[in-house]
Amino acid sequence: MTIIDIINKKRLNKELTREEIEFAVNGYVNNKIKDYQMSSLLMAIVLNGMNERETIDLTDIMLKSGDIIDLSKIDGIVVDKHSTGGVGDKVTLVLAPLLASLGIKIAKMSGRGLGHTGGTIDKLESIKGFNTKITEDKFIDQVNNINIALVSQTGNLVPADKKIYALRDVTGTVESIPLIASSIMSKKLASGADIIMIDVKVGNGALMKNIDDARKLASLMVKIGKSYRKPTICLITNMEEPLGFAIGNSLEVIEAINTLKGNGPSDLLEVVMTLCSIIIGAVNKIPNNDAKNLLFKQLNNGEAYKKFEELVTNQGGDINKIRVSNKVFSIKSDKSGYINKIDALKLGEIAKNLGAGRNTIDDKIDYEVGLVLNKKVGDYVEKDEELIKVYIKEKDVNISEILSCYKIDNELEAIPKLILDVIK
Amino acid sequence: MTIIDIINKKRLNKELTREEIEFAVNGYVNNKIKDYQMSSLLMAIVLNGMNERETIDLTDIMLKSGDIIDLSKIDGIVVDKHSTGGVGDKVTLVLAPLLASLGIKIAKMSGRGLGHTGGTIDKLESIKGFNTKITEDKFIDQVNNINIALVSQTGNLVPADKKIYALRDVTGTVESIPLIASSIMSKKLASGADIIMIDVKVGNGALMKNIDDARKLASLMVKIGKSYRKPTICLITNMEEPLGFAIGNSLEVIEAINTLKGNGPSDLLEVVMTLCSIIIGAVNKIPNNDAKNLLFKQLNNGEAYKKFEELVTNQGGDINKIRVSNKVFSIKSDKSGYINKIDALKLGEIAKNLGAGRNTIDDKIDYEVGLVLNKKVGDYVEKDEELIKVYIKEKDVNISEILSCYKIDNELEAIPKLILDVIK
Repeated sequence: MTIIDIINKKRLNKELTREEIEFAVNGYVNNKIKDYQMSSLLMAIVLNGMNERETIDLTDIMLKSGDIIDLSKIDGIVVDKHSTGGVGDKVTLVLAPLLASLGIKIAKMSGRGLGHTGGTIDKLESIKGFNTKITEDKFIDQVNNINIALVSQTGNLVPADKKIYALRDVTGTVESIPLIASSIMSKKLASGADIIMIDVKVGNGALMKNIDDARKLASLMVKIGKSYRKPTICLITNMEEPLGFAIGNSLEVIEAINTLKGNGPSDLLEVVMTLCSIIIGAVNKIPNNDAKNLLFKQLNNGEAYKKFEELVTNQGGDINKIRVSNKVFSIKSDKSGYINKIDALKLGEIAKNLGAGRNTIDDKIDYEVGLVLNKKVGDYVEKDEELIKVYIKEKDVNISEILSCYKIDNELEAIPKLILDVIK
Repeated sequence: MTIIDIINKKRLNKELTREEIEFAVNGYVNNKIKDYQMSSLLMAIVLNGMNERETIDLTDIMLKSGDIIDLSKIDGIVVDKHSTGGVGDKVTLVLAPLLASLGIKIAKMSGRGLGHTGGTIDKLESIKGFNTKITEDKFIDQVNNINIALVSQTGNLVPADKKIYALRDVTGTVESIPLIASSIMSKKLASGADIIMIDVKVGNGALMKNIDDARKLASLMVKIGKSYRKPTICLITNMEEPLGFAIGNSLEVIEAINTLKGNGPSDLLEVVMTLCSIIIGAVNKIPNNDAKNLLFKQLNNGEAYKKFEELVTNQGGDINKIRVSNKVFSIKSDKSGYINKIDALKLGEIAKNLGAGRNTIDDKIDYEVGLVLNKKVGDYVEKDEELIKVYIKEKDVNISEILSCYKIDNELEAIPKLILDVIK
């Protein structure tokens, strides 16, 4: 068996055996197979696809390339939640303490942001002192003690995915449903949770640009989860406009805190409530409406926020030290009308370029910059009324670039649905 | 413009602009674009293709990446001939001196063999002292003096193709008609001849496995040639069984010499005569039958062989010093019947593994080893009659492997045509 034979086989659109996928992945991890051979194979996979069997094998081989976290020392059912990435997506920051405040165990490893989407770890690190790098033992202790820990990856999880993902990022081979599914699921399975909940974002600001692809990705991930007997539930949610009002690390944490105190934006709240009630349904067998009532109670009685405070304190952070830039620029609308579109991708890119995100993994982030929308899709705006606030530091604002993200018309178009599907 | 944008565009099956192809090729030659990015782009091209415009632009950009030989100092029309590579393909060794003996100028740069196909330069170097590395000035002088020179590449011709081809060879991205066409044509155009003649081999022992692909490749190369106003003529010839009887460097030179003396195998002779009469038709406007008569005269009166001798002497070789191994092994048929197939690819691989060819560009060749067929497709063979002679030195013969290359039946199947098409 040679890597060239394997590449040729996939080039000719044939099914690879488990042994062939193993040869390619393990050979690449061990530096026996070159970057230029792996990238050629990856492009053949992107264009000719992989079937379910190949994708499940690829996931399993990547999963077994490194450590697998053993969470059996945690009492009760452990839930992990993942998002495929969007703009203004601070769902984890609300969902995790909210569920933990109800006794559900949240043992979550998160990633950093890259490109126009942010990462939970960066957001948490905008809280002064918050330590996301804790040992596996402390991680497990903390979940046992306070039901929640949010950390960056611990141990040597899925080194194969790490190496392959870095290569995909620079070779135009990111957009492949089997490759995305196996990358996400190998990491989730290695993290050891009992229930996996995935928010599949779809739309202009997301990796999946249309609902069909999002459904395919979700179904595939659910099937991979099933092959390990791990209940996997995917919610498909709209990511045409940013979620909530805030984009940028500190700004998003502040919005999450407001939401935990019962003052959240309705779209963010809708996604959080839908995800949480599904999880509670799966863990506690409680009907949907009862679950929602329970959740609202936790937001309104201060318990959810208290859990977040507890999490921050336990991981060394100071909840009173979340800084945003004091250089704030207000952008006004240049016409009156209904806002029919807000371009999430473009606003995400603008926030990234202000310093809130990274172009490459080595870029430094400025936690204090970002955007806060004043209006959302469906709102009416007067000429010269504020559309959005821009928090800047080193980089300047390009007003016309920001205005070009808005589609404002005399007539109101249909407002798109936020929750598009649940696949489990 | 970034290479990732260009890869993504081709991944989405869109047409690349000339500027984008230039950015990719020149960036790769200048080491600004990485191997792993180029191989990903190449796989996207292999699977999504390139249209005529893109292929002509790619050829032109590769052509201009290095020197272009100026043959204007040669009096008269200069002919170049190329083969896409086959097993036992010694056509150049016969055709070149035959045409030169009639006053046609042959200024030919050839390559070395790789894999199961041989190379003209290796075959010539099996003649003791034959020097294939001569300067451009000497090369031009020799063509002016004796009408013929056969050399390995001089100068820095098409460095882009050299680098890209080496990468394609190890990344499963060889089999692409636009990439093959631009690779061949950029080298032929850089070599400076007035008329380009290409023998497109088709069948099991060739790069093109079926006639449709061979016709597409041929048409594309003719169109590229036309865009430079260089008459380009492609002959499509069968490469299911080896051409002639001999496979291996010295053995093929001896067979070529016999053919130049008028004692050649009929299939080799048919290819040579067809190619030569087309060239004579193009250069001297002589009708096909007159051309063939002229050519046969040159073989029978010794002039063609004399020209070969002159070539060898001029390039420092000793025509009397062509050695073949004295360890000869005769393989007999294990049954009686008609030979309906002889597997050219497998016999080419066997000859390579005996030492006649290379697996990688750094392997050393043994000029003295190889195979000489005693029977060809269509022949009847008795049980225990000799099928093939094997000339060995260090490596042993695997009799059953060789016998498995033959399909021998009670009934004679239709004998495939040798000359399949002419495209110009």
